[in-house]
Amino acid sequence: MLGNCLENVRRNKPLIHNITNYVTVNDVANVLLALGASPIMADDPDEAEEITSICSGLTINIGTLNKNTIPSMFLAGKAANRLGRKVVLDPVGAGASRLRTDTAIRLMKELKLDAIRGNMSEIKTLALGNGRTKGVDADVADAVTEENLSESVSFVKDFAKRTGCIIAVTGAIDLVSDGDRCYVIRNGRAEMERITGTGCQLSSMVTAFLAANPGNMLEAAAAAVCTMGLAGEIGWQRMQPGEGNSSYRNRIIDAVCNMDGKTLEEGARYEIR
Amino acid sequence: MLGNCLENVRRNKPLIHNITNYVTVNDVANVLLALGASPIMADDPDEAEEITSICSGLTINIGTLNKNTIPSMFLAGKAANRLGRKVVLDPVGAGASRLRTDTAIRLMKELKLDAIRGNMSEIKTLALGNGRTKGVDADVADAVTEENLSESVSFVKDFAKRTGCIIAVTGAIDLVSDGDRCYVIRNGRAEMERITGTGCQLSSMVTAFLAANPGNMLEAAAAAVCTMGLAGEIGWQRMQPGEGNSSYRNRIIDAVCNMDGKTLEEGARYEIR
Amino acid sequence: MLGNCLENVRRNKPLIHNITNYVTVNDVANVLLALGASPIMADDPDEAEEITSICSGLTINIGTLNKNTIPSMFLAGKAANRLGRKVVLDPVGAGASRLRTDTAIRLMKELKLDAIRGNMSEIKTLALGNGRTKGVDADVADAVTEENLSESVSFVKDFAKRTGCIIAVTGAIDLVSDGDRCYVIRNGRAEMERITGTGCQLSSMVTAFLAANPGNMLEAAAAAVCTMGLAGEIGWQRMQPGEGNSSYRNRIIDAVCNMDGKTLEEGARYEIR
Repeated sequence: MLGNCLENVRRNKPLIHNITNYVTVNDVANVLLALGASPIMADDPDEAEEITSICSGLTINIGTLNKNTIPSMFLAGKAANRLGRKVVLDPVGAGASRLRTDTAIRLMKELKLDAIRGNMSEIKTLALGNGRTKGVDADVADAVTEENLSESVSFVKDFAKRTGCIIAVTGAIDLVSDGDRCYVIRNGRAEMERITGTGCQLSSMVTAFLAANPGNMLEAAAAAVCTMGLAGEIGWQRMQPGEGNSSYRNRIIDAVCNMDGKTLEEGARYEIR
Repeated sequence: MLGNCLENVRRNKPLIHNITNYVTVNDVANVLLALGASPIMADDPDEAEEITSICSGLTINIGTLNKNTIPSMFLAGKAANRLGRKVVLDPVGAGASRLRTDTAIRLMKELKLDAIRGNMSEIKTLALGNGRTKGVDADVADAVTEENLSESVSFVKDFAKRTGCIIAVTGAIDLVSDGDRCYVIRNGRAEMERITGTGCQLSSMVTAFLAANPGNMLEAAAAAVCTMGLAGEIGWQRMQPGEGNSSYRNRIIDAVCNMDGKTLEEGARYEIR
Repeated sequence: MLGNCLENVRRNKPLIHNITNYVTVNDVANVLLALGASPIMADDPDEAEEITSICSGLTINIGTLNKNTIPSMFLAGKAANRLGRKVVLDPVGAGASRLRTDTAIRLMKELKLDAIRGNMSEIKTLALGNGRTKGVDADVADAVTEENLSESVSFVKDFAKRTGCIIAVTGAIDLVSDGDRCYVIRNGRAEMERITGTGCQLSSMVTAFLAANPGNMLEAAAAAVCTMGLAGEIGWQRMQPGEGNSSYRNRIIDAVCNMDGKTLEEGARYEIR
């Protein structure tokens, strides 16, 4: 019933607070609107808690973290925990600098997160306490492949169990687990890596799906991941001759905008392990 | 003569200083260029006054205000007042946090604003000193409708009179008043709400129109509002199958880019009350 | 062999650290991905050096410089110098405020820059120590024309010699010199001025080209400039009726995404003086 999860977002129109990087923030706002959710961005400590309090969910994305926004992440996250709002962490570039690794790990420790969404290098960094992330992209050695799939599923399940939150690892094959079950998702296209921000967009989409489907969190997170991957497939089909990554970015968000539950239900390609 | 107001922007090419949020800033820059104006963004207190001094107008948009940019808003605004530059306030999210409400109200008190552009929830917050804004979108209860139009017009006129500046309230029906007369504008499409930043873009467009039409401010502000609404209509006509909010964003700015005085004159739908 | 320079970027996939403005940052990230390079943005002093250390090149763009990011520019630049990474400066708006002029000049003095890319007003500001930049666009009086071409080439060569770095001045005619030779490039279209960020994008492209062609720096910088100009021509050819500057932005990045060495080789229009 992934389709229902999407329809619930469209119906409930959750307001989502995003403390996020300035690289992809516009796409994050537009993809939330494409889903039927509402975005608000606010990252000063003087308003972070208050903004979270009027929202159904909070996305913490550390993509361009700084001295002023890091305290806001903790303040907003604690407010969300107190008030029972959903909290999703996107540990962008964890492993690329100590500041990112340490901040992401502290956020995991001091907050009750509902989900973490990252690439495998980032997630391994969080699991191991240090990493070898190549910038903001996953290291090739960390890719989930058909060969290492069982092992990868076990790793993600274990990490989800250990942290008590949903772990979504995205890449050529996506894994989404609550520690018990793991969705293995094969939507999406390799060309999505040529666009900045599909990961950031997805993390905020996960927040919206969780906020709109509080009783069904694992499926909601998997539905967000399938929505993004399927939008990547539909957007690609609509590419015209001569178009490249900039048009593809628009076409993916457009596909999210036009997607309904039935399309998602039919296009989602996954198994549960 | 709304068309003349637009042609004056294209002819005078005003340089506009924008202290604005990082969510929609790129679209703000591109829409100003689409109009024939020039954008410059600068938000550090160490240069805010100086940048304003070389510009014809200043837009203060509190969308992602923070400790460093709030002082810049006051410094730049006071410089603009001293030098006779136009100043427009966009109170994004006023009512959603005390920081936003208080900052917007202090800006109103300490600066001589030429115009304020917001949705009805934001404007009511400024008028009443507190609000119930749903994030950065207007509360449904605050919408201007045919039913409450007379009352809404009176409210906007009164607030314009009280503050001594032009008030532009945008939504399904747009109201633009200088306290004496009120343009009631029916351009635009509901689908524009599915795009982030049309309001921010419009606020900076108002600044450019005021700067290029200093002797004709009410009409200039109304022309900016009609330009945006009409661009929304033209952009929508050009939508292709499968396109959604991301392409619509591009098509609206494209329509501003291609609009001339005659098109605006013929397409503007308004009455004056 | 400009085409080889481009192919080397696609082959080496350099990771580029950008300390850049929030106006055009998304386009910068997407154009680097379009080239086959990888972007990372990080501007807090607590991680700037470390991020530079994992990258092949650093772009310092002062477009929305502030108290927190200026120290990062120096820290990252010095780390890049220590580690032999390429460093490119984009002095956005130098001449428009003392903060910008002074920061750009200090960066030139305290860092070993590999290239500086700006418009003629910005470059003259750096050469003379003060300027008359019209915001972030070049003053018309500063434009390189066929009439003042010899004089302009001499100026750029002299400045490159004096600073010991490659100077790339872009406008209707582009000049790229290492002090010895000067590429005079006639790619591009006037309509590119109606889009925000083509200059910022180009500066980060120069960084990627230098990083991927360390033994052939002048040609690499010229190849970056030709790539951008040619993409502007190809993108323009693909414009559909009713499209304007927002679509043009996408079409230019798309053209970079699809460009190969052969296309660049055939389309580049330049002479060496």
